[in-house]
Amino acid sequence: MSAFSDIPQIQYEGPQSDNPLAFRWYNPDEMIEGKSMKEHLRFSIVYWHTFRGTGADPFGPGTAVRPWDDGTDSVENAQNRARVAFELFEKLQAPYYAFHDRDVAPEGSSLAESNKIFDAVADVLEEEQKRSGVKLLWGTANMFSNPRFMHGAATTCNADVFAYAGAQVKKAMEVTHRLGGENYVFWGGREGYQNLYNTDMKRELDHLGKFFHMAVDYAKQIGFTGQFLIEPKPKEPTKHQYDSDAAACMNFLRSYGLENHFKLNLETNHATLAGHTMMHEIDYAGMQNALGSIDANTGDMLLGWDTDQFGTDYYLTTQTMYYILKHGGLGSGGVNFDAKVRRESFEPIDLFYAHIGSMDAYAKGLKIAAAIRADNAIDGFISKRYSSFDEGIGAKIEAGSVGLADLETYMLEKGEVSPNVSGRQEMLENLVNKYIDRV
Amino acid sequence: MSAFSDIPQIQYEGPQSDNPLAFRWYNPDEMIEGKSMKEHLRFSIVYWHTFRGTGADPFGPGTAVRPWDDGTDSVENAQNRARVAFELFEKLQAPYYAFHDRDVAPEGSSLAESNKIFDAVADVLEEEQKRSGVKLLWGTANMFSNPRFMHGAATTCNADVFAYAGAQVKKAMEVTHRLGGENYVFWGGREGYQNLYNTDMKRELDHLGKFFHMAVDYAKQIGFTGQFLIEPKPKEPTKHQYDSDAAACMNFLRSYGLENHFKLNLETNHATLAGHTMMHEIDYAGMQNALGSIDANTGDMLLGWDTDQFGTDYYLTTQTMYYILKHGGLGSGGVNFDAKVRRESFEPIDLFYAHIGSMDAYAKGLKIAAAIRADNAIDGFISKRYSSFDEGIGAKIEAGSVGLADLETYMLEKGEVSPNVSGRQEMLENLVNKYIDRV
Amino acid sequence: MSAFSDIPQIQYEGPQSDNPLAFRWYNPDEMIEGKSMKEHLRFSIVYWHTFRGTGADPFGPGTAVRPWDDGTDSVENAQNRARVAFELFEKLQAPYYAFHDRDVAPEGSSLAESNKIFDAVADVLEEEQKRSGVKLLWGTANMFSNPRFMHGAATTCNADVFAYAGAQVKKAMEVTHRLGGENYVFWGGREGYQNLYNTDMKRELDHLGKFFHMAVDYAKQIGFTGQFLIEPKPKEPTKHQYDSDAAACMNFLRSYGLENHFKLNLETNHATLAGHTMMHEIDYAGMQNALGSIDANTGDMLLGWDTDQFGTDYYLTTQTMYYILKHGGLGSGGVNFDAKVRRESFEPIDLFYAHIGSMDAYAKGLKIAAAIRADNAIDGFISKRYSSFDEGIGAKIEAGSVGLADLETYMLEKGEVSPNVSGRQEMLENLVNKYIDRV
Amino acid sequence: MSAFSDIPQIQYEGPQSDNPLAFRWYNPDEMIEGKSMKEHLRFSIVYWHTFRGTGADPFGPGTAVRPWDDGTDSVENAQNRARVAFELFEKLQAPYYAFHDRDVAPEGSSLAESNKIFDAVADVLEEEQKRSGVKLLWGTANMFSNPRFMHGAATTCNADVFAYAGAQVKKAMEVTHRLGGENYVFWGGREGYQNLYNTDMKRELDHLGKFFHMAVDYAKQIGFTGQFLIEPKPKEPTKHQYDSDAAACMNFLRSYGLENHFKLNLETNHATLAGHTMMHEIDYAGMQNALGSIDANTGDMLLGWDTDQFGTDYYLTTQTMYYILKHGGLGSGGVNFDAKVRRESFEPIDLFYAHIGSMDAYAKGLKIAAAIRADNAIDGFISKRYSSFDEGIGAKIEAGSVGLADLETYMLEKGEVSPNVSGRQEMLENLVNKYIDRV
Repeated sequence: MSAFSDIPQIQYEGPQSDNPLAFRWYNPDEMIEGKSMKEHLRFSIVYWHTFRGTGADPFGPGTAVRPWDDGTDSVENAQNRARVAFELFEKLQAPYYAFHDRDVAPEGSSLAESNKIFDAVADVLEEEQKRSGVKLLWGTANMFSNPRFMHGAATTCNADVFAYAGAQVKKAMEVTHRLGGENYVFWGGREGYQNLYNTDMKRELDHLGKFFHMAVDYAKQIGFTGQFLIEPKPKEPTKHQYDSDAAACMNFLRSYGLENHFKLNLETNHATLAGHTMMHEIDYAGMQNALGSIDANTGDMLLGWDTDQFGTDYYLTTQTMYYILKHGGLGSGGVNFDAKVRRESFEPIDLFYAHIGSMDAYAKGLKIAAAIRADNAIDGFISKRYSSFDEGIGAKIEAGSVGLADLETYMLEKGEVSPNVSGRQEMLENLVNKYIDRV
Repeated sequence: MSAFSDIPQIQYEGPQSDNPLAFRWYNPDEMIEGKSMKEHLRFSIVYWHTFRGTGADPFGPGTAVRPWDDGTDSVENAQNRARVAFELFEKLQAPYYAFHDRDVAPEGSSLAESNKIFDAVADVLEEEQKRSGVKLLWGTANMFSNPRFMHGAATTCNADVFAYAGAQVKKAMEVTHRLGGENYVFWGGREGYQNLYNTDMKRELDHLGKFFHMAVDYAKQIGFTGQFLIEPKPKEPTKHQYDSDAAACMNFLRSYGLENHFKLNLETNHATLAGHTMMHEIDYAGMQNALGSIDANTGDMLLGWDTDQFGTDYYLTTQTMYYILKHGGLGSGGVNFDAKVRRESFEPIDLFYAHIGSMDAYAKGLKIAAAIRADNAIDGFISKRYSSFDEGIGAKIEAGSVGLADLETYMLEKGEVSPNVSGRQEMLENLVNKYIDRV
Repeated sequence: MSAFSDIPQIQYEGPQSDNPLAFRWYNPDEMIEGKSMKEHLRFSIVYWHTFRGTGADPFGPGTAVRPWDDGTDSVENAQNRARVAFELFEKLQAPYYAFHDRDVAPEGSSLAESNKIFDAVADVLEEEQKRSGVKLLWGTANMFSNPRFMHGAATTCNADVFAYAGAQVKKAMEVTHRLGGENYVFWGGREGYQNLYNTDMKRELDHLGKFFHMAVDYAKQIGFTGQFLIEPKPKEPTKHQYDSDAAACMNFLRSYGLENHFKLNLETNHATLAGHTMMHEIDYAGMQNALGSIDANTGDMLLGWDTDQFGTDYYLTTQTMYYILKHGGLGSGGVNFDAKVRRESFEPIDLFYAHIGSMDAYAKGLKIAAAIRADNAIDGFISKRYSSFDEGIGAKIEAGSVGLADLETYMLEKGEVSPNVSGRQEMLENLVNKYIDRV
Repeated sequence: MSAFSDIPQIQYEGPQSDNPLAFRWYNPDEMIEGKSMKEHLRFSIVYWHTFRGTGADPFGPGTAVRPWDDGTDSVENAQNRARVAFELFEKLQAPYYAFHDRDVAPEGSSLAESNKIFDAVADVLEEEQKRSGVKLLWGTANMFSNPRFMHGAATTCNADVFAYAGAQVKKAMEVTHRLGGENYVFWGGREGYQNLYNTDMKRELDHLGKFFHMAVDYAKQIGFTGQFLIEPKPKEPTKHQYDSDAAACMNFLRSYGLENHFKLNLETNHATLAGHTMMHEIDYAGMQNALGSIDANTGDMLLGWDTDQFGTDYYLTTQTMYYILKHGGLGSGGVNFDAKVRRESFEPIDLFYAHIGSMDAYAKGLKIAAAIRADNAIDGFISKRYSSFDEGIGAKIEAGSVGLADLETYMLEKGEVSPNVSGRQEMLENLVNKYIDRV
């Protein structure tokens, strides 16, 4: 039985289409830089916002109308919901999905029971994956909702909670492995603090290092070779999240000898809450050989929390795809829609409008980025801008063959530097508009 | 001839004093935890804001009335200004000061001339240091004001500018060494970018790594053993400063093998612009064995730029001193007033009010922090909070003797975690007020 | 049966007390400027956070342990909870409380049933008010939680919802009247918009104006003479709240001829989210003859949403009480603790710690403010600062007896202005610290 | 002699042009909704940023290379600069310009001399206006740069400064009148406070009210019929600017009986610093019958100060033009580029790139907005959304013929509201992208 019987599978109809239930830009098999759009974008739909999100906010309960969901925590409801999810994945032509253990399967009255329920739902997921061809981008464990995690999971002050979290990750990794998940993600939920007055930050981070080493060891033990990812985010739900941005994550990984085992799952609205652009975070991660995957959403730049909106801004999607292309693509990662419809967009069809618009925006962003790259319009400008380091004193500096005394000798002789040239920011901004116009 | 003839040397008169030109809390020889206040706080006054600040802002030129300054860039004016500075340092009983090369000495028409002028002013600084006993906390090079540095210094796109910066650091380090400077600071001025569209971030950071290695090598060469410090700051003057916060600095240092040669100079308003509390940044740096020194000021939390105000908030100074004490003090660093009077506080006496108030606030903060520590009021609470890691499964976790499978076994058996206890944030906030009341 | 049998009534023990369950500053009968502390502060405890708050946040359900609450929506549970509430009010010596219709009484399956339930709970409230002497500061209607209000209440696009809201306010006003409420508050809940793309702002505000006029008319009809208050808040839960700050509220009231019928209920964290200090909002409202009441809490200045924390910062409480005293006190308003314990502070005793600490902080703030006023320390400085307007050209300007041409004549003759004097901000900040030290 | 001899007059070449010195969208005579683009947009170039901006920032002096400017404050230099300015205005096909008194003409050693210099430069401006046909959008007086205005102009604590400001406005209004200026603008410069501790806000605002009444009176006296405008801005240069946003401005105007004499000059980056979108401010002003003119720029949403960048974002320009069209256009106002090139874009040609790109972006925004309007795509959706107020209970509410009791009767009978419909935010965002794609 179909949950979305009125909605056809969404097809590419091209930019001139007026059909709000068609793709105007996302054309899965269209080739860009030698790969299909589908392979570049590796779109993934999240289970939590899409199938467990209710529209609740701190000022009111949920509004979402989801006729297929009986609102209970029964295994049957969870299994049925999973089947509905795959219908949506297929209708949106999404090749991937992602989940938390506790959103696909309800929590039981004990760990053992929770594991059993999880397996029962995983049976349906496996069956649906086979039937539909939709694959698992990543799995993860929700270690932040249950009150037991109020003080953190791996960074809790309660050793039992750490143990529980470890057990939960073990199971989530096993299920991810079973379902062929290409990555396993850790989002630091309540790994942080509300107030330093009651917190031993060093001890908490030492525990977190231990926790990740246990995960690395266990993956080896069971032969799970998917990529581990951690996800930068500042300020929410704790006042200070340890994984506050890409740099903080990398410094943590380096401090605990984990940098070869983890990459980053970057999220747009997390980047901006940390005071960075998404393109900065991607370029930074790429530079550190740590670009893993992205959570594609957007925030409201005038609001101070994670609004998880669907991104439709062509500047954002162009910049995002440009830096992904620059760093050789997403590897085993994907463009994962960690986004939710507004509380007022409470009908099932809004889920479709939201995904279609954002898939189109990333598809167009990809095309714009590729067009800029085809003309070497930005990279060419940049190469020329730094060309003084390709020869002479610049080349010596890069080769490490000069020291401060040599530089002083050089400059005392020369007297003053050769003139700077304009950074041309305005011209480059115009240039990006030109490519937006033409694609 | 005195520039501040109306102003006596500022003396400690105790909390009951109504004299606005007396210390009410800063009592240099008062012993706290076995050291004098003077040794704990190591107050330092900055040359730039205090003697070169004019009150100019983006909407108008300077307002400051400084009768001793003839407004010229002559060497004589610079030398005279230096003597006035030491009069102020002494009257404020500040044991240290700090400078940039280009604020103590004007820039000449060539590098060679600039170096000569710098030496001529350094002669006076040396003389005044000997006469007064005031010491140099740190020197640094201003590599951000001159238009040649518009695109950065070590991260410029112009190799000549990199060379110039290297020559400038060489000289600044030599002068710092000559004057017995206990540290040498790099604040990343324009080391960052305005727009990624024209920027090769990786190449810029590689250059910055080279630059710091050259500085380390040169220090060794000349026998300068002062501590190198870098200073986290986000967002200003470039849109993205590479040294955006303590974590970003540490990850940079680790990425380029520099972590054993540098510590951090943390500034309050830089911390808050990066979205962190100052106590967070201190605790983070301490945890990373990188607490070097602090720039003591405060921002206006409702304004989005570095206001560099004098900090008088007892909560801030208590938290700052608490975490400094926790990490064993500032070593060769100090509490450096990188702060400026408001544009409307344009009279010389405002420089005194400003420093006195903030020195008092840090002195009282030190006393409050020490009182809390004497009672083990916070640390005791924290130790108890984490005590589940002192034994049983917690101890095994810390010892690294268990893996995920062990944790699962443990938890399957136990079923649910032992209950959490309240974080007691409100009680702890009340407790801090109690100590503020009683000191 | 007592819900807080282990907790005695909180008594004033003075600043030297180490009892965390005693007041150190709040001494109800202590006289300040001729009135008792109790009369100045008019403390009020809110029903919603204190008795209906669960600690839920967008990342997890509630954590609060409330043994007296059976978790059901039965009338009996609501009535019992009301009795527990009064026990807390009394133990905290709070003279007032405040509620929303839907937090004291659960919503029924129809408006008629909801009204009946509300009456049944109001019976208990009335009984408890009589028994305890605790009074109702204000009542209000929750017109934002129920999904029917997703698009707003008085500013909804659905006329039926407007009608429902009107009916709800009618009843809430009647109950407030019955219980002797001294004010009636409108907080604009979802009165605003998420996106202008789907919004007719003018039409919505016209409706809001109509709504308030209906309320004014109905109050007259039933003889309710309590003060109407609206409550400024920006950005939450809608992206743009119409009542974004005090100025926006006043302009709305003036635009619709309502300025004589409404005053403002100012909340600290709403002020700061709007980019203002609380003292600004109080002074602004006072200046507009619109200071009604305050919601006393604080935000985390590094977080971008309404954290509703208990305020314990002496600077905040001093500034708040200073401007309240300046404008002649709160009239029929009060210091209402619209604040909640942290999610991790989940035990009943945390409710006590939280209120005690904040009551003490406002009490000390009141004492500090009064001490500053007794010495005319700030107002005297200010009067002198503007004294050039007390005579000569300044007096003529104030009298309105000169025009631009006169001013030109005056200034052409004089040539340049008489010198400015320093704003002395730093000295004044030190002065506030002195009063904090001495009270 | 030409200052821009290498740069031709900028011509419209259409979207396919690769010429960075051509318009791709701004086609002055193209008709949109019955008016030419030129008449809709009324582009204006500002004198201050464009001809007096140096690229100085708080961390370094200017970088701009302006070969026509000898850097002196001579009248000849000012007159020559004015001629260069008109060359740029003409080459950019800008129909309007705007200035402050002190940017077109240097300040003399007395008010009388300043007035004389101003007249001498105004002679050239008048001559150039006649020669070129470029007109004056508005004039204004700079009452914030000179140190005499440190404490404000009309809101200073020094009566002489108020008088000086009055004299300055008199002269600036006269010159504006002489030059046919279509508006006269007041930007509140330092009209605000740094700290309430030293401020009598009420007295300052009373003075500001007097000041504006004097301006209104004087305009009548000299027959100046241009529109008076005030300009909302929060937070800079004072901590609190009295004219913080459109609502604060309107409440001030209403409080002092000035609302019929003033409209608003809205600036994009001022809107966002106040926490509002530009479209909000335009719609709000329009609703209050106070839409006067706009300062077209953009900010960096990750930076907390007024970056005054050239806006090239099609979303921004579409929203801006959409709401301008909705409210019937700008009247005597214009799209005024209060924007500056980046400090690193220091060459004259960058001034051209910057203006061309932004003029194009507003032109395209206008076309997109008109296309949306032609299809009634947004307004039609909105009308339908509120249609429940067109009949039945909704119509009665709008007519004012029902009260709370009627609404209760209606709803008690009906029981529950008729269902809400989705707000469709995501669909509407997709729709805007469709129009961006197609224009």
